[in-house]
Amino acid sequence: MNIAVAQSGGPTCAINASLVGVFRESLKEPEIDAIFGSVNGIEGLIQNHLIDLKTLIFTNDDMELLRQTPSTVLGSCRYKLPDWHDDDSVYRKITATLEQRQIGAFFYIGGNDSMDTVQKLSAYFRETESPIRVIGIPKTIDNDLCVTDHTPGFGSAAKYVAATLQEIIRDSSVYSIPSVTIVEIMGRHAGWLTASAAVLHELGEAAPHLIYVPEADFSLDKFMRDIRSQMAKHKAVIAAVSEGIEVPEGVQSGVVDNFGHKYLSGIGSYLERAVRNEIGCKVRSIELNVMQRCSSHLCSRTDIDESEAIGAAGVRCALRGETGKVMVFRRLHNMPYTVTIESADATEVANKEKSLPRSFINKDGNNIAKAAISYFMPLIQGELVIQMNHGIPAHFTIQESLLK
Amino acid sequence: MNIAVAQSGGPTCAINASLVGVFRESLKEPEIDAIFGSVNGIEGLIQNHLIDLKTLIFTNDDMELLRQTPSTVLGSCRYKLPDWHDDDSVYRKITATLEQRQIGAFFYIGGNDSMDTVQKLSAYFRETESPIRVIGIPKTIDNDLCVTDHTPGFGSAAKYVAATLQEIIRDSSVYSIPSVTIVEIMGRHAGWLTASAAVLHELGEAAPHLIYVPEADFSLDKFMRDIRSQMAKHKAVIAAVSEGIEVPEGVQSGVVDNFGHKYLSGIGSYLERAVRNEIGCKVRSIELNVMQRCSSHLCSRTDIDESEAIGAAGVRCALRGETGKVMVFRRLHNMPYTVTIESADATEVANKEKSLPRSFINKDGNNIAKAAISYFMPLIQGELVIQMNHGIPAHFTIQESLLK
Repeated sequence: MNIAVAQSGGPTCAINASLVGVFRESLKEPEIDAIFGSVNGIEGLIQNHLIDLKTLIFTNDDMELLRQTPSTVLGSCRYKLPDWHDDDSVYRKITATLEQRQIGAFFYIGGNDSMDTVQKLSAYFRETESPIRVIGIPKTIDNDLCVTDHTPGFGSAAKYVAATLQEIIRDSSVYSIPSVTIVEIMGRHAGWLTASAAVLHELGEAAPHLIYVPEADFSLDKFMRDIRSQMAKHKAVIAAVSEGIEVPEGVQSGVVDNFGHKYLSGIGSYLERAVRNEIGCKVRSIELNVMQRCSSHLCSRTDIDESEAIGAAGVRCALRGETGKVMVFRRLHNMPYTVTIESADATEVANKEKSLPRSFINKDGNNIAKAAISYFMPLIQGELVIQMNHGIPAHFTIQESLLK
Repeated sequence: MNIAVAQSGGPTCAINASLVGVFRESLKEPEIDAIFGSVNGIEGLIQNHLIDLKTLIFTNDDMELLRQTPSTVLGSCRYKLPDWHDDDSVYRKITATLEQRQIGAFFYIGGNDSMDTVQKLSAYFRETESPIRVIGIPKTIDNDLCVTDHTPGFGSAAKYVAATLQEIIRDSSVYSIPSVTIVEIMGRHAGWLTASAAVLHELGEAAPHLIYVPEADFSLDKFMRDIRSQMAKHKAVIAAVSEGIEVPEGVQSGVVDNFGHKYLSGIGSYLERAVRNEIGCKVRSIELNVMQRCSSHLCSRTDIDESEAIGAAGVRCALRGETGKVMVFRRLHNMPYTVTIESADATEVANKEKSLPRSFINKDGNNIAKAAISYFMPLIQGELVIQMNHGIPAHFTIQESLLK
């Protein structure tokens, strides 16, 4: 039997580690022959664009390099499968590709949209009595997938956010005049990544003094009161703000650029302007932007090792004959940190979002409760020994022409 | 004799390493007794706010931790001394502090504004026949100081910019649709830091496909033609843009926020909107913001070691009886990279800026010439073994109350 693997959704530091997990485990299995990589997620199966991974990854050093390379080495996509009852044409294309290449199992590394693909494709194969198995390997820096304790990619993003915030704290506290620094953090509708900044409190930092997540109500008046109250106590106030917090409708719509188009700035720069206009102090907003999902040079070894392990577990799950499953972490202990890997029905994960629990948020809704620290702390532990190339982290790359 | 040292201007990753250089070298000199740190730059001398550094830094481990801590552990300032012919009141305060503490030499770590302080203060002491010596230790991520081959702090910033851009390249190239990513890089009026991104070309990256520095003429029309031309060749176009490039006057003034205030966005988000409106493709702008000056976790060992060495050299210079000098690097060889440390008159450095030479820029003014690579490459080499604390880089900090 041959197998295929693909990567989907937004980049993280850990998607290639899960690819290594699938690859390395498959090499060990005498049942498995060729290991195909599908280019640009499910699109590669639709367009029959596959690469034999054994022609790209030769040594354990290659695998180690791939583990420290951010993003998706096989490309990605945002493709959503239609309901096959309405239109099964792409399903037939995918089946043709898989059958032509004698592929008996397909592993899809991705977020909750990709788990929708796992669910639909496995249901289609069951219905059409195809023996092809489909297994989902989760990933997202947002940590918003259901069932699993946490998601591959999250720990590295959380480590980057905490380390960078600590450096921003050092940077912002040098002058004797009062200042406010607003740091905008990713996570879509979920506050996990923003909340993880609270690990700094455990390490002796007073900052971030304020943390706002979408799971708590937000109002600009309350925010201004919070800022003023922190300014009375601290010279350099730092607020961590999730990109997903909701500001009253229309507040941003007054901004029109010189092309006459509405300018939608991020929440960070919106709050920066609000503080400048209402308080008038030195204020700066910082967007951690894509760096928080691709800074592999500062990845969490726990995250990378687990991401490889969950990819490997996916292969064993498929060989047991399971399909339509998503691999998940179950946490047994915070200390010493212990997780096992299990499988869950894709229907439990697909298209669903897991919010930060209310117990992780303080009463005032402007910071993170101490209870959350023991959840986050184990996920950011450990570092890879990063292989360098002339002063810059080395990356594993594929010739651009192979991806076209 | 006692000595004093202070830190000034914007943060970098290397200012504390220069402090360690002054401290460690002074410990070796039997002539030197107490080593005072002045809080918030020259303001500490004016307000007689000094800390005995031997009560803060005890071990070689402390010094190693200080070397990996970004920003200025003693605080900073943006204070400019008046001409003492007009008003010598602050000069008399400074002299009183120094004399009271029996300080025979003052070391000022800072950029070209701080070198103005070195020049004025040393001239005042000469004029008033005070034996107190004043020595400048340069620092700035902008690399725009005259005389010196390069500035402490620049190499670490350049390493961060190159490593981060490489991660952004991986991140931006995952989807099959065309995209443009604009990365805004610091440097004020000088293009050094933005230009240093060109080291990636030497490491096999096609990106950044376009690099814009203030030393080359910029026009929005030309920029749009450049982007279109690169989009014909590359799926994911990356442009590195210096914060200091000039766009035609008034182009940003059309943006007014809902408070009725003019909104001055950065050049990156300005160009992002321009590309979106004129080309309509997927486009993102990324500001590397303060992370490029404070990401000590990815500092250049060459930079940190040199920054310590130039601090130490300052002490020896003062003990030779020199004053009104700024320590500078002179490069003897690119390969093997060799620098010596000399001293220059502060008048040659103060209030002056060094631009990127035209020979470092390509003919079209939209990229960096190959000739520049051998200048930048040695400065980003090597890494520190970063001491970690529960998954986050450990920092050396001083109790906040001591800095008040």
